[in-house]
Amino acid sequence: MKKTVLLSMLLLSFTSAAATDMLPAWKDTPAKQAIEQWVQGATREGGADFIPLDKRYVVFDNDGTLWPEAPLTFQLQFAVDEVKRLAPDHPEWKKDPLVAAVLNNDLKTVAAGGEKGLLKLLALTHSGMTTEEFSQRVSAWFDSHQDKRTGCRYDQLGYQPMRQLLDYLRANGFKTWIVSGGGIDFMRVVSEKMYDIPPEQVIGSFALSEFSLTDDGTELRKTMKGAFNDDAAAKPVAIHLFMGQRPVAAFGNSDGDLAMLQYTAANPNYKTFELLVHHTDAAREYAYDSHPSASGKLVKGLTEAKQKGWTVVDMQQDWKTIYDPAQCQAK
Amino acid sequence: MKKTVLLSMLLLSFTSAAATDMLPAWKDTPAKQAIEQWVQGATREGGADFIPLDKRYVVFDNDGTLWPEAPLTFQLQFAVDEVKRLAPDHPEWKKDPLVAAVLNNDLKTVAAGGEKGLLKLLALTHSGMTTEEFSQRVSAWFDSHQDKRTGCRYDQLGYQPMRQLLDYLRANGFKTWIVSGGGIDFMRVVSEKMYDIPPEQVIGSFALSEFSLTDDGTELRKTMKGAFNDDAAAKPVAIHLFMGQRPVAAFGNSDGDLAMLQYTAANPNYKTFELLVHHTDAAREYAYDSHPSASGKLVKGLTEAKQKGWTVVDMQQDWKTIYDPAQCQAK
Repeated sequence: MKKTVLLSMLLLSFTSAAATDMLPAWKDTPAKQAIEQWVQGATREGGADFIPLDKRYVVFDNDGTLWPEAPLTFQLQFAVDEVKRLAPDHPEWKKDPLVAAVLNNDLKTVAAGGEKGLLKLLALTHSGMTTEEFSQRVSAWFDSHQDKRTGCRYDQLGYQPMRQLLDYLRANGFKTWIVSGGGIDFMRVVSEKMYDIPPEQVIGSFALSEFSLTDDGTELRKTMKGAFNDDAAAKPVAIHLFMGQRPVAAFGNSDGDLAMLQYTAANPNYKTFELLVHHTDAAREYAYDSHPSASGKLVKGLTEAKQKGWTVVDMQQDWKTIYDPAQCQAK
Repeated sequence: MKKTVLLSMLLLSFTSAAATDMLPAWKDTPAKQAIEQWVQGATREGGADFIPLDKRYVVFDNDGTLWPEAPLTFQLQFAVDEVKRLAPDHPEWKKDPLVAAVLNNDLKTVAAGGEKGLLKLLALTHSGMTTEEFSQRVSAWFDSHQDKRTGCRYDQLGYQPMRQLLDYLRANGFKTWIVSGGGIDFMRVVSEKMYDIPPEQVIGSFALSEFSLTDDGTELRKTMKGAFNDDAAAKPVAIHLFMGQRPVAAFGNSDGDLAMLQYTAANPNYKTFELLVHHTDAAREYAYDSHPSASGKLVKGLTEAKQKGWTVVDMQQDWKTIYDPAQCQAK
């Protein structure tokens, strides 16, 4: 079969996909309309806003954009649970005030440890094992832990409207990428299952592993060397490094995503799209991001969105559902 | 159109593609037969060696595997030419013995500078500009320079048998990746045109860029920070970081590719394929790699290939053509 034939069949499938409502979890508000208008323009061949198939790269933050980040990010919760699981084998850990705080559920002290404390927790739980062992530990954690508030598995808590948006964009020929401050090896364990995003399209914080030969093969052991924190101004850097081209749309939720949205909006070749998820729904999720002191805060981003005409999603106003009720019946 | 329908059409197209000889630049020798046998096994649904579509990731070294690396790698030639082009604007450079050697075509002194000298040349020619400016410089260099021996443009010198092999593997559902010691930003300028490989499937040596806002948008400026040399034991590390899964086939040409082949061969889930291109053809290309002192040397690799049954391509014996005569009529 010729490439061109295959391509036109793909295009056909995109067209027919666009005819049905692929965003039923979105209310019919300006946010949804803005998305659909942009996608229609980007896919209308011959139109002024057309974007060729091989340039349709779009990037999504993860924590707070595709899944919740409150009260702790899932990955920090994993680190806390792993410290507790591993502590009996490491009696020396108890002498460390940070680890002691984790074991005593004293999250205030943990938070007060700042970035240095976080790096220590990551070193204890995200390095020293092989990459395969780490993936198994992450899998086992997802299989055995639930979010306290909803009672659901963490990997059932992808926001339904955003998961539909990923499907809708892919049906229109877009390549969907995650660009997150979360750990690359952590997210890749669930990205395919939760979002239909393959591992190579997940960009995140990382550190370098170490290769060696073993008796029966090879191993890659996780270290903290070359640690790269994929947040704020580092996000465009990572997009260039991993993806090698500028996105045409960017979706985030906090000021840590601002640089990624600015980098996308400055794409000189295409009419781009930028969106911020605003956490306004204390009843169904959390409302936290407009406080300047909040982690995951969204302050500068809201100002810039207004100036530049970016879309702001008000979770309470714009989303019919937060989670997929077929996956997770929140308590 | 349903995903499954589309998928079966894709599979159909793979099947029909396999019926014609997609490797006409290869002589009918054991090397070609080994490739075809492995691909047939990997794509035979229900067979013992079947590899699912979403696991068909294969990795290729670039210098010496997909294009020549003698007498200098193309990228080092680019760096040399760039130093010459830029030197008039930097009179202070002349005081530097390494730059003086470059300007005097004294490649012996350049080579004697070793890795430190190489890093200095890279710093002068691969950092300080925006990522866009760098791409433009690389493009301009390809447009204005020819390989001395063949008289051809450097981007016409992809090995024809390997370019056919890339097409053949893709027609059978494999995702082709480059994993090279070459610079990631350098290779990505030509990877699509030369090999039909999009930028995000090119992994190479890199350093981090720096993001900033400008009067009319944003910029990423290339630096030497966090420099990562994607060679030898670093190749599996980079594969894990960028690709996030273990390859099922690896193609290289030097001992610098050995770790990548070992990592691939140790894939616990599938029957893998490993191949080394042996530079034996002084008449049509170069014969250099069996000297233990050669850069791009292949000594340990040949021993291990024999022990493990990896395929070794003898360029003189196994390839009908080296370059595509339609692109490049070598002098």
